[in-house]
Amino acid sequence: MSETYDYDLFVIGGGSGGVRAARRAAALGKRVAITEEYRYGGTCVIRGCVPKKLFVYASKFSEDFEDARGYGWTVGETRFDWPTLIANKDREIDRLEQAYRTNLEKSGAEILVGRAVLEGPHTVRMTDDDRRFTARHILIAVGGRANPHPGLPGAEHCITSNEAFHLAELPKAIVIVGGGYIAVEFANIFHGLGVATTLIYRGKEILQGFDDEIRHELHQAMVRKGIDLRCEELVTEVEQREGGRLAAHLAGGEVLEVDQVMLAIGRKANTENLGCETAGVALDAVGAVVVDHYSRTTTPSIYAIGDVTHRLQLTPVAIHEAMCFIETVYRDRPTRPDYESVATAVFSQPEIGTVGLTEAQAGKAFPEVEIYRARFRPMRHTLAGRDEPMLMKLVVDGATRRVVGAHVLGPDAGEMSQLLGIAVKAGVTKDDFDRTMAVHPTMAEEFVTMYEPTYRLKDGEKV
Amino acid sequence: MSETYDYDLFVIGGGSGGVRAARRAAALGKRVAITEEYRYGGTCVIRGCVPKKLFVYASKFSEDFEDARGYGWTVGETRFDWPTLIANKDREIDRLEQAYRTNLEKSGAEILVGRAVLEGPHTVRMTDDDRRFTARHILIAVGGRANPHPGLPGAEHCITSNEAFHLAELPKAIVIVGGGYIAVEFANIFHGLGVATTLIYRGKEILQGFDDEIRHELHQAMVRKGIDLRCEELVTEVEQREGGRLAAHLAGGEVLEVDQVMLAIGRKANTENLGCETAGVALDAVGAVVVDHYSRTTTPSIYAIGDVTHRLQLTPVAIHEAMCFIETVYRDRPTRPDYESVATAVFSQPEIGTVGLTEAQAGKAFPEVEIYRARFRPMRHTLAGRDEPMLMKLVVDGATRRVVGAHVLGPDAGEMSQLLGIAVKAGVTKDDFDRTMAVHPTMAEEFVTMYEPTYRLKDGEKV
Repeated sequence: MSETYDYDLFVIGGGSGGVRAARRAAALGKRVAITEEYRYGGTCVIRGCVPKKLFVYASKFSEDFEDARGYGWTVGETRFDWPTLIANKDREIDRLEQAYRTNLEKSGAEILVGRAVLEGPHTVRMTDDDRRFTARHILIAVGGRANPHPGLPGAEHCITSNEAFHLAELPKAIVIVGGGYIAVEFANIFHGLGVATTLIYRGKEILQGFDDEIRHELHQAMVRKGIDLRCEELVTEVEQREGGRLAAHLAGGEVLEVDQVMLAIGRKANTENLGCETAGVALDAVGAVVVDHYSRTTTPSIYAIGDVTHRLQLTPVAIHEAMCFIETVYRDRPTRPDYESVATAVFSQPEIGTVGLTEAQAGKAFPEVEIYRARFRPMRHTLAGRDEPMLMKLVVDGATRRVVGAHVLGPDAGEMSQLLGIAVKAGVTKDDFDRTMAVHPTMAEEFVTMYEPTYRLKDGEKV
Repeated sequence: MSETYDYDLFVIGGGSGGVRAARRAAALGKRVAITEEYRYGGTCVIRGCVPKKLFVYASKFSEDFEDARGYGWTVGETRFDWPTLIANKDREIDRLEQAYRTNLEKSGAEILVGRAVLEGPHTVRMTDDDRRFTARHILIAVGGRANPHPGLPGAEHCITSNEAFHLAELPKAIVIVGGGYIAVEFANIFHGLGVATTLIYRGKEILQGFDDEIRHELHQAMVRKGIDLRCEELVTEVEQREGGRLAAHLAGGEVLEVDQVMLAIGRKANTENLGCETAGVALDAVGAVVVDHYSRTTTPSIYAIGDVTHRLQLTPVAIHEAMCFIETVYRDRPTRPDYESVATAVFSQPEIGTVGLTEAQAGKAFPEVEIYRARFRPMRHTLAGRDEPMLMKLVVDGATRRVVGAHVLGPDAGEMSQLLGIAVKAGVTKDDFDRTMAVHPTMAEEFVTMYEPTYRLKDGEKV
């Protein structure tokens, strides 16, 4: 039966989700092909999480040099060389891409290079040579990309995060447009590397959807560092000046002359010219592939996972969706991806870690909510003289005592969110937190020593 | 009735345990006095956890300067000034001591300064002016101190951690004797500050009681950094040479000439000349106060908490024992301190974090044990070129799937152990770990992506 198709599974897109699905299916003995038009590894490895985090590490050293003084160190003149970072980063990315390919090869999947488009429920075509392949199932895992903001006059002069990873030289001044985590992370990266950085966001406050107090506290911390952060402001036009500099015109009338303007105003699914219409795969209003609870598209033989579906756009979620796809399609155990209490991090400076409900969400979900809150200066900052408070919050359902949300702003918040995530996902109670002995001296010990609620919510109102 | 005593409670010792007990009792309306012969804050604040961690922070910058290169930074000549660190550390310790006193004052406890000794079940005497006070209850919270190793010829030339916090100048070379966490932490501190450091330990491997693989891996990491670490070796004599240098004679015959020899061979309870015999308070063979499950000594009106009782010698445990004492004595809720699954950290470089059973302990406790293990290079080390692997282990009871132990060696391990501690204390299962979505890219995500056991133990044997 399956011999009527070239493959059991054809995966379009060699990112985290597609590679995982291809490897697992191949390991189960399926005949699998996977194709990627750019580089294996996808957004995460090639132009997202990984190079971003490497840039974050690079940009944090400038504060280490400052902080060292209070600890008795004299640090001679420091100089940062952008091309060195880029070259070393590229070498590491090459290594990781190779690891992705090697693992794919080992799994027995056939590795193709090139762009594939859908031609029907079981058919894809490689656009460069018009080869056609058939498969019992097709998995769309083509991801997304930065929204290019075509409505902005002068958008063609702007970069996105893609280009930020490959700039020939470090700008002296940059305007970043956006208020999401990518905009915020890059603002901190460029600032830490010595770039005069302006962040322009049209909303009321950066990082919509995160805990309000943490958003505000991070905003203040970024401003104190020297980032020019403007909310409720808009870039209306970007104009190229002589010598290559750019003029960013703001709605308020001001004009900022800078070397680069970076757009980080959201991401969109890579579904243009993918042949979705031909194959009967429906897209939503913003171009994402519509899927059911099992990642199946409107064409039963075609599934879609990862960023192209606009569910939770996170690498581990794409991988999880891949695993669920395998269970559902190849192991006869229909499995829905589980999106409850997914911990996430923002690698801002200071970092944010978060899992579960914010205070506002919990206020809507539960009649009685207890908020436990600690705001303090981490010990490392004392001798450093760094005025950057840490903020921790626990959100507790008053009726069951279950910890339904945990939020941190401060050093190592990302690591913390991962491990808090285990406890929150397991449904532990505030009493479990209270029973846990502190580890001293750590920052995280504050999470187990907040014995009394800081305040309560009743029907969503602070009491 | 209580009017027949000067106080309801007299606390001897102003460390973490004593101060917490005094504050809580006073807050409940009890008439409380507390005395301290040296400085309020105790070992933790004055000459333990806090200054130690500040030294750790100071000593880590030297690796940051090295690591920065791979990220594109050129760092000019760096110089470390020991007196600056000491002065800044002392200022911070002064601030914390004052905070301890202020909190005590606010609570309404009477604050005395001086050494108190027991004269009877309800009587203490201040040794400097022979004032006597009576109290319904007396709480012994006098802590412990570094073992001075009187049997070592030349011990009088050696320092302990106490003196290490106040050395007039940084030694150029040091020998540290011991293999416990204090010896290991100070070896890393001195090495990081540029001191030629030798660690001499008579046992087979450093950090007895910790996971064997983590002990070994840390040993290797310290050696790679350049620490001269010798196990199964002994200092037999310390001799003062002309010019003030010290010669440490080793059992193996070698003689190491260094500027300081630091002894870190364990700690002993501060019970000498405390009047325990007079008051009927029994001591164990090594001089610790004997207590029952409720911290009560052999004299019913006298309790003892913290390091003087040689239970778990940790600040949060002393505080926990203080809270249990308050519940038991003043709130009519007899409460036993809970020593199960206490998470701890060693601020070695790299750090260790640990909670629950080691592999060896679990092998004895459960017929079937699953070990999940990850060993990898943390992302920050890649561009830095730092060859220092991270090690993570989960120990799972095969029958119940409960995670009974978690162990980490690597950056932020201390913070991790605190939050892993919540999950382990709450009794979560390996399936709860598996259900938790990864936070990418973090180090801690490895804890939730180890899906298959690395190996199993059956009746304690690797299978």
